[in-house]
Amino acid sequence: MVASPTTITLACLRDQAAAAARLEAIAQRTSGEQIIQAAARVDAILERVRREGDAALIALTEEFDGVRPEPLRIPQQELAAAWEQCPAHLRRALELAHERILAFHRHQRPSDLAVTGPHGELLGRRWRPVERAGLYVPGGRASYPSTVLMNAVPAKVAGVGRLVMVTPPGPTGQPNPTVLAAAHLAGIEEIYRVGGAQAIGALAYGTASIPRVDVITGPGNLYVTLAKKAVYGQVAIDSLAGPSEVLVIADHTARPEQVAADLLAQAEHDPLAAAILLTTSEALARSVPAAIEAQLSGHPRAAITRAALENWGLIVVCEDLDQAAALSDCFAPEHLELLVEEPEALAERIQHAGAIFLGPYTPEAVGDYLAGPNHTLPTSGTARFAGALSVETFLRHTSLIRFNRQALHATAEAVVALAESEGLHSHAESVRQRLD
Amino acid sequence: MVASPTTITLACLRDQAAAAARLEAIAQRTSGEQIIQAAARVDAILERVRREGDAALIALTEEFDGVRPEPLRIPQQELAAAWEQCPAHLRRALELAHERILAFHRHQRPSDLAVTGPHGELLGRRWRPVERAGLYVPGGRASYPSTVLMNAVPAKVAGVGRLVMVTPPGPTGQPNPTVLAAAHLAGIEEIYRVGGAQAIGALAYGTASIPRVDVITGPGNLYVTLAKKAVYGQVAIDSLAGPSEVLVIADHTARPEQVAADLLAQAEHDPLAAAILLTTSEALARSVPAAIEAQLSGHPRAAITRAALENWGLIVVCEDLDQAAALSDCFAPEHLELLVEEPEALAERIQHAGAIFLGPYTPEAVGDYLAGPNHTLPTSGTARFAGALSVETFLRHTSLIRFNRQALHATAEAVVALAESEGLHSHAESVRQRLD
Repeated sequence: MVASPTTITLACLRDQAAAAARLEAIAQRTSGEQIIQAAARVDAILERVRREGDAALIALTEEFDGVRPEPLRIPQQELAAAWEQCPAHLRRALELAHERILAFHRHQRPSDLAVTGPHGELLGRRWRPVERAGLYVPGGRASYPSTVLMNAVPAKVAGVGRLVMVTPPGPTGQPNPTVLAAAHLAGIEEIYRVGGAQAIGALAYGTASIPRVDVITGPGNLYVTLAKKAVYGQVAIDSLAGPSEVLVIADHTARPEQVAADLLAQAEHDPLAAAILLTTSEALARSVPAAIEAQLSGHPRAAITRAALENWGLIVVCEDLDQAAALSDCFAPEHLELLVEEPEALAERIQHAGAIFLGPYTPEAVGDYLAGPNHTLPTSGTARFAGALSVETFLRHTSLIRFNRQALHATAEAVVALAESEGLHSHAESVRQRLD
Repeated sequence: MVASPTTITLACLRDQAAAAARLEAIAQRTSGEQIIQAAARVDAILERVRREGDAALIALTEEFDGVRPEPLRIPQQELAAAWEQCPAHLRRALELAHERILAFHRHQRPSDLAVTGPHGELLGRRWRPVERAGLYVPGGRASYPSTVLMNAVPAKVAGVGRLVMVTPPGPTGQPNPTVLAAAHLAGIEEIYRVGGAQAIGALAYGTASIPRVDVITGPGNLYVTLAKKAVYGQVAIDSLAGPSEVLVIADHTARPEQVAADLLAQAEHDPLAAAILLTTSEALARSVPAAIEAQLSGHPRAAITRAALENWGLIVVCEDLDQAAALSDCFAPEHLELLVEEPEALAERIQHAGAIFLGPYTPEAVGDYLAGPNHTLPTSGTARFAGALSVETFLRHTSLIRFNRQALHATAEAVVALAESEGLHSHAESVRQRLD
């Protein structure tokens, strides 16, 4: 006799207020106490990197990764070798992804402004790339070649002169070979075998081996994220990434196997990943748990995936799509899939989401790898104020002002009035000194 | 007998290496120890605001500002009254500034992207305003109507629905009346009488009276800046502003009185302000200190201004403009004035500056008040990676992806290959579930 599979325990709510409260709790699933404790350790690591430089990097890598990374830098021929040794089908896939990501990001380059004012004065804004960017690529379970492409391509499109990648060595002393192959494809030449808060410190302060950069991007664990927050202000950072999440809005047209696969594709990342289904279809809400259970059978990451779904999974049955859109906006999901009859109309009603995947042929996975837009997206409700990593992350702008004699004379009275109202005597004087 | 005026002690260097070292020290003029002590106090204030809400705001304002701000909100009729009571010449000046700032910022609105991929799939990026923005306006010596305009206008141009201003009450219990008049002109209706770290906490967490916002902008003292850093990640912030600075590059065509006025206009802000002159003209380097001394006579802020110049002022004599440009890029000044024969050519060679003021008719003061570009600029060398406050500060973007059947089939093999190389089984499965 074969035991029937247990069905996954996936919370299902019909009450909208209860659903909103649960979504709020899911959004805040990273514990505050854990963060405070980690922050103190991160500060100590950063201080040590600032004081001791490379010696700290080598000692901390030996302590945390069990490998003495000497030399810190990966010889460039190893990148070319990793590419050569990468299986042909995977090289083709990486090339297609690289080409598509490049094509989309090229559209993001902002234009310079040059405006002529009423007196012939020139007012402008000029965009330029940062000189140096640091790219963090995690190790272990989250060491992904797609992370390399999604971070390196916008930097290259921006025109960053020097791109510095850091990634922890694996147990063999070498990073993930497909990560190295992707770096080669993306044109990264400078990679250091160091990860964690110590790698962020090296990029922010510089050491004898690793140059100080202007902006640091890339995902990481809690220590990496806290280190990025600590150095924010001395360098720019892309964002403070929390655990990943998907929210699916589905109506009666959605197929349970597809919804199940999409929820599982989020849950398999991390025990803290969140996967949420809002649906107007009672039938779908009833059939998705069994479809999940069926796909969990033999799943290579079944334990992680099940933990994520049982802790941070949720199904909500909504009266209509307006209710679903309102709940989704409370959560402000990183990834939002619209498996509904008219996804464009629903997308218009959505205020807050990192990326929206429209219709039945757009599983999140196409966006994760190769659709074109960036897969680095705002988590934990930060889509209220942030968007995807972009070419602009690696640019900064400078204002340009050139007044002429006429413009100065025409505005002098107002500048003097404002300066005097603020008690700034020399501000007024700097204008008076230039009048005839 | 009248005592002859003492001439100001203004460091003058000719050695480029010494100049670079001194510029580095000036860039780091805010003391680290002071920051660490203030950070602990700020954390305690933020925690109290989070726990006690309005009660904490009232108690802390009474403690720090000597006024019990009840009610917290300024009645709206007081804003209209402040505008009516504002002298006519100042109203005209504010109106001109408002109009010019508005006109320039309207050019900054980024365009949405909608790209069609090779299989007819749609890839896009959509910009929308944040729902709520919080604007901090300092009290005391730095309570400026220009700050209100420079922060409110880009938010309004972005289309922010709700703009919330916070500013500490003065000794009378009321904020600066010209600040209120400027707020009325800019269309701000919601102002609360609270400042410091407690105001930042209120905007980040929300209280019964003050709504939680999505982005906080505006300058402040060390406590305000540290509070902005602490809440960064829960809300967006514009930047972490340090003390202000100007760097002037001048050749033999520059007039010493104008250079002196421009250096004084920076120094009069704050004893920590920095004012630097790089010149190819020995004669100018010799004549500027006396011109400064002459303009300091009877200056209403002589003590502050003198302290700033003696501590953080510097004149460097350079061999040529290339040397000056290289030194300026080491410092990455917030404000850069080019008082040289060919300012456009020199501006092209500059890599790092928040704003560049070109030619003899463009004192920084025109940019501070009304040229059009924003006066909130990156300080302390952060122009390496940051630019002016802008309309984009109040926008965020959402990615849009809509694949069709053909696009999914054409890319499925590559997505599956990449997903399997990353060990993400359900990512691959979510694509397979959609193939015919």
